[in-house]
Order: sequence, then structure tokens, then C-alpha cells
Amino acid sequence: MSEQKEKMTIILFSGELDKAIAAFTLATTAAASGMEAIIFFTFWGLNVIKKNMFVVNSKQNFLQKMFGVLNTGYLPMSKFNFLGIGPILMKLLMKQKKVATLLEMMKTARSLGVKYIACTMSCAVLGLDRDDLSCEVDEFAGATSYLAEAKEAKVNLFI
Amino acid sequence: MSEQKEKMTIILFSGELDKAIAAFTLATTAAASGMEAIIFFTFWGLNVIKKNMFVVNSKQNFLQKMFGVLNTGYLPMSKFNFLGIGPILMKLLMKQKKVATLLEMMKTARSLGVKYIACTMSCAVLGLDRDDLSCEVDEFAGATSYLAEAKEAKVNLFI
Amino acid sequence: MSEQKEKMTIILFSGELDKAIAAFTLATTAAASGMEAIIFFTFWGLNVIKKNMFVVNSKQNFLQKMFGVLNTGYLPMSKFNFLGIGPILMKLLMKQKKVATLLEMMKTARSLGVKYIACTMSCAVLGLDRDDLSCEVDEFAGATSYLAEAKEAKVNLFI
Repeated sequence: MSEQKEKMTIILFSGELDKAIAAFTLATTAAASGMEAIIFFTFWGLNVIKKNMFVVNSKQNFLQKMFGVLNTGYLPMSKFNFLGIGPILMKLLMKQKKVATLLEMMKTARSLGVKYIACTMSCAVLGLDRDDLSCEVDEFAGATSYLAEAKEAKVNLFI
Repeated sequence: MSEQKEKMTIILFSGELDKAIAAFTLATTAAASGMEAIIFFTFWGLNVIKKNMFVVNSKQNFLQKMFGVLNTGYLPMSKFNFLGIGPILMKLLMKQKKVATLLEMMKTARSLGVKYIACTMSCAVLGLDRDDLSCEVDEFAGATSYLAEAKEAKVNLFI
Repeated sequence: MSEQKEKMTIILFSGELDKAIAAFTLATTAAASGMEAIIFFTFWGLNVIKKNMFVVNSKQNFLQKMFGVLNTGYLPMSKFNFLGIGPILMKLLMKQKKVATLLEMMKTARSLGVKYIACTMSCAVLGLDRDDLSCEVDEFAGATSYLAEAKEAKVNLFI
């Protein structure tokens, strides 16, 4: 039986600003304290690592293009979105309190070696290509790879 | 101290199509790779294993009947529901990409031995009877049974 | 490598009645069966342990005061909120079925020694003071403390 490592895995399923902040706060803290940290981006969580607001590419069929336009890279909040005012207030409050923004956290995460894995199945369904996602994605993989990592990790979260 | 087994537990709290797909993808993958996999259906997650759209039975009181009608077995999406268009689009996209539907995944899950446990407390509150749920539910149990399983599992998720 | 203890940690991120009930059911059951149980209240989860409906204090700046009024201690449901009718129905159903209310569960949790930790960063962003939260909060701490606990726990959930 494999021994458990100082490792944390996070499945980021949600495409919401507040949940993404929670996921990256945990992952960067883990990496900073010497743990291995892995984020699996799946479903709406892929919105967090899209290069552009709208993803429409030549390999997509009509439905996928439609989804690519409707399902923008814009991250609302899970509560108090108020047509977009909520995320602005949250960002202002975080700035006032000198808490890093999501983009800053993502940079720190990468510099600390947090691993990014994008879910193959979700990418196939949504017609997302490697070029559509942040170049910082380390790997495209599915549930089998996730489980192989999670079985060895001490902390596994679904966000 | 009990040793940790090659086991995964998932609490399926949400009654949403996308989250149910994520839960069943993980559970079937785990079972296919030889892990023990258990899904605990609680609160809205019970909607996933309801036999009928509307659950009204003779043992329910007025409030429970009302809930049984309002809280249908219909699974919306956690995002982009668009009055029901979202789930239809999602199902179309999954079909195009030859990804199994939720029903197919649930069949596979059972054939691979994924265990289904329905939360006793939620069933009591909602007036759900054994007959109202899929005959594939293995057990009705509460938080104590969940914890006994989770303590021994390598991967525990709340979806 | 640290050995895993009979411990459960829950990150309560959501400020919803149904999810809070799930979290406290699990935590009290764990504590009642001799496990150590810890709840980390973060983001909207802090609403569950606010002393008052509206939190406005003299140390808050304008934005924080605004958030303190908008983000009340009122807990909606994650589904079927129906402008507040859902939570009332749910509470009635739970009362009929003699399931403990959230407040009762929280009292039981404390009497069984469930530990409450409030997230320092969220409190700073929202301008929440120790006095604004239930006096039963044991500690204010961040992601580092969470990870130290979670690494040693057998069950870790994000709710």
C-alpha cells in the first residue's frame, strides 16, 4: 500500500471568484510550507485558467462555439454577485487589506511549483484546446490520474 | 488505529446535473481501477436517485407532500441553467463527444460495485421512502456510518 | 511523517442553512464518537457564527460597513430558497421529525468539544472583529494552521 505523502489535491470544479481565491490560498500556502500541491481544473473551474474571455476556436462545432461565448472567463461570486458589483467590491476590499489578488496568487502558486492539471473530458466536451488555456497548465489528464494522486495525498478537497 | 484502504467516499449533497456527473465519473473510475467506492446521497443529492419526478406517498404529511412536488427529481445545472436549456446543451455536447450520460454512468457504477447509501435523516425529513428511491440503494444510514467508512478511506470528497 | 489521528476537519465556506446543517451534523457525530472535530469558518461560512444579523463596527471602513449590512447573518438555502420560504419549511419539517435545529446542533457541538476556528484573512477583509462573532470561537487562524490540522486528519471536507 502506497504511503501518504505531504501532498494536497484540490479539484476546482467551480468557476467563481470567491471559491477560486479559497483554492489558491490553500494551494499556495501548502506549497510555501513544503507540501506538494496539485489543482485539477474541471468543468467551470477551467474558466479560471482560460486565456481569453471568450473561447472560440476553429476545431469547435456550433454548440461548442455557443458555449464558448456564453460561458465566458468572467468569474462571478457564489454569493452577492449583484450583476458584477460584488466581485468589484470584493477586489477593492482585498486590495485595501493588502490581500493578494487572484492573479497575483496564481503567479505565486506557479513560482512555488503548484501543479495545474486540466480535465481532459471537460476540455473535450467544451472544445477547449491547449492554446485556449493558460500556458501554465502542466498536464491534461482524467479521473484516473486524479485518483492516483489523491490516494497518496493527505488532504483532498473538492471546491 | 485502522489502516487506510484503497477506498473513496463521496457525499453527494448537491442535486445538480454537472456535480452528479463529476461524482459518478470519479466513483466509476475509482471502482474500475479496483478501489472501493461509496456514494452517500444526502439532501438534494437524493434527487439523483429518485424513481420518479415527483415523490408523493401516503406516509408523508402535508409539508412533505408539498416539498415532494416542489423538489422534483429534475436536475438543473449549477451554472448556465438558462431555464433548462443549459442541461439540454450539456447533454447534447456530451453525446457528440461520446461521453456517457449520467444514466449510463449510474449503470456502469452499479455494475462495477459502487455502493449507494441514502442518508436516513434527509429521507425522514423529506418523507422519502425506500420505494421512492432507485432500487439500487444498498443501505440507509447516517453520519455515524459515513464516518466509519470515511476514516478508512484514502479519498473523501463533499460534492 | 506524522501519523493520522482520529480527526476530522471541515472548511465551512458556504453561508447556507442546508450546508451548515450538513457540516454540524458531521462534526457533532464525529465528536460524539470520540473523534476530534474542527470547523474552519471562512468567507460566507462566517455568517453562521455572527452574533448579530448586521455587523457594523467602528473599526470598519465604508466598504466593510456596506458589506456588513448587505451580507447579513441570515442563512438562505442553497436550493429552494423561494424568498425565505424554503428555510422556514425546512425548519418546520426538521421540527416535525424531531431533528435538532442548527442552533441546538451548534450547542451540542460545543458541549462535545468541536473546535471553532475563524479565518483571519476573511475576517480582515470583511472587517469582522472578535466581538462580532460568537464567543465560542476558539481561535483565529489562517491556511497554515488549517493545513497543519488537515494533514493529520483522516477526513477533510470543504463544504
